[in-house]
Amino acid sequence: MKLAIDAMGGDYAPEKIVQGVELARDKYSDVKFTLFGKEDQIKKYLNNGERITIVHTDSEIAMGDEPVRAVRQQKTSSLVLAAQAVKEGKADALFSAGNTGALLAASLFIIGRIKGIDRPGMTTTLPALEGSPDSFTMLDVGANAESKVKNLQQFAVLGNFYSSNVMGVTNPRIALLNNGAEEDKGDPLHKETYQVLKDDPNLNFVGNIESRELLAGKADVVVTDGFTGNAVLKNTEGTALSMLKLIKHTILDSGVQVKLGGMLLKPAFKVIQDKMDYSKHGGAVLLGVKAPVIKAHGSSNEIQVSNALRQLRSMVKSNLTQNLADYFAARPTDKK
Amino acid sequence: MKLAIDAMGGDYAPEKIVQGVELARDKYSDVKFTLFGKEDQIKKYLNNGERITIVHTDSEIAMGDEPVRAVRQQKTSSLVLAAQAVKEGKADALFSAGNTGALLAASLFIIGRIKGIDRPGMTTTLPALEGSPDSFTMLDVGANAESKVKNLQQFAVLGNFYSSNVMGVTNPRIALLNNGAEEDKGDPLHKETYQVLKDDPNLNFVGNIESRELLAGKADVVVTDGFTGNAVLKNTEGTALSMLKLIKHTILDSGVQVKLGGMLLKPAFKVIQDKMDYSKHGGAVLLGVKAPVIKAHGSSNEIQVSNALRQLRSMVKSNLTQNLADYFAARPTDKK
Repeated sequence: MKLAIDAMGGDYAPEKIVQGVELARDKYSDVKFTLFGKEDQIKKYLNNGERITIVHTDSEIAMGDEPVRAVRQQKTSSLVLAAQAVKEGKADALFSAGNTGALLAASLFIIGRIKGIDRPGMTTTLPALEGSPDSFTMLDVGANAESKVKNLQQFAVLGNFYSSNVMGVTNPRIALLNNGAEEDKGDPLHKETYQVLKDDPNLNFVGNIESRELLAGKADVVVTDGFTGNAVLKNTEGTALSMLKLIKHTILDSGVQVKLGGMLLKPAFKVIQDKMDYSKHGGAVLLGVKAPVIKAHGSSNEIQVSNALRQLRSMVKSNLTQNLADYFAARPTDKK
Repeated sequence: MKLAIDAMGGDYAPEKIVQGVELARDKYSDVKFTLFGKEDQIKKYLNNGERITIVHTDSEIAMGDEPVRAVRQQKTSSLVLAAQAVKEGKADALFSAGNTGALLAASLFIIGRIKGIDRPGMTTTLPALEGSPDSFTMLDVGANAESKVKNLQQFAVLGNFYSSNVMGVTNPRIALLNNGAEEDKGDPLHKETYQVLKDDPNLNFVGNIESRELLAGKADVVVTDGFTGNAVLKNTEGTALSMLKLIKHTILDSGVQVKLGGMLLKPAFKVIQDKMDYSKHGGAVLLGVKAPVIKAHGSSNEIQVSNALRQLRSMVKSNLTQNLADYFAARPTDKK
């Protein structure tokens, strides 16, 4: 298989991208990589060119660029060329750590949606701190500012396939993020979505989940509209980060006893940080387009880039896109 | 002043309610209390009846009762009688730790909205872990499943008054919870609300805040629609709780060294839990009705009940409701 890499997107591009690609290349002998970007800069960080092709371009989309305009106008940017390679069948999947909106736009306009899918959804893997398995999938976390019942229903199907095909979960438990556990909770969008998910014979729908229990491992796929999903995802990150900071500062501001305790506790904090670190599961996946697309965090280091590439490879190997296309081709017309 | 207390609402009612009332009575010599509920049960826990009146009723609304129906039908329930006392001017403010929806319904149908306010908002005080002051106000956190621009604008005004009158913040910084910092982020509701808040000369609007930075102390009032606010509030609680559990279990599962570290760190964890414990600020306040109304957490102990009563007293003393009524009476017609 061949992966198309936007080598110029991300805070530490192309250095960490190139290093991450080399890590993944060394691990997975069945993968070839095409890197799009400034050849001299890429070569500067490249140790070994085995199974790595460079397609030179001088142009790249910046983090602050207006996404849709950038993708339409910057035809020779590293991102657009990488997406073009996927569209033309020269590569099987797309990776970027750059401008999220631009990756979204390039995926929609260049690679295109799977037939029958109204709105692709951005999907992330989060830690399940209690219960098993130790992670779950949530979508949409921000590809769409507004969603309809039909979109939420499709997110459920997309998440269901992702969880079973890529994460290896049998009969994934699908839950709807809502502001109460009971069936009649939420605004009309969530009330109606509840009924549609409940009535879908292809989904193992387990009901509403409240954001209080998000990390408690009660579902394998959490379905949400992009606005709420984005807010809750960022809130989880922010609260965890604020708490770790608070713990650190409290220890630093304390006496010798507590400081000693802090030192002794270091191995435990490593375990905790590792459990909370969901970048080990890879990046955010855009589900619903005609090829696997992954967005790594802008600040990704080489390990995180390599994790995202491992995930992209799993998606290609599991035939996720074709399975989704087959499903939506055979599916009777959606409710609304 | 006199506070009307639903003595039968909450997981530990009437015991903890009665104990909390006595704590508050001992602290605040200017407050009288009327407790509505089963007289024999209340008396069982009451040490000293000074400034405490009991109004007996056998009926109470249960946690699981359908709120609107319960308030309409259970005319002699402790909650309805307490709300009735406020409406009739026999008490200045209302306290309950019971069914939230029923308290909301009783407040709207019996006490009534302040003229000019379309939808009251449920307001909570959360810890600001970085920066000063050490807490901030967020609304709506769930009184409304759906909101319009006008509602969000009114939440901003309500929060502004609450922050300055009750929390003592000078010129509170008002922020809009949104999925991006830039002016053009979010769905149409949030985009339009941004412009309305920006154009309001009576508000110190500081722009969008992302939920990632919620606890970072960047705003004194965070305005949000009830669906997102509820999700983010519960997510903050849930993430903090899951992390504390994770820390505890990791320590318990570790060797002697880490366990010793955990013991030495106990004083620090006390500081941390105290900072995260926002029940010390009291309960959730329903802003926009004709008298101060507070909802304490269902699982409140006597300290938390007493904190909520302190907060209720501050609201009465600051003349918050009259200030709000004056403002909305003088306010030119809202945008939409």
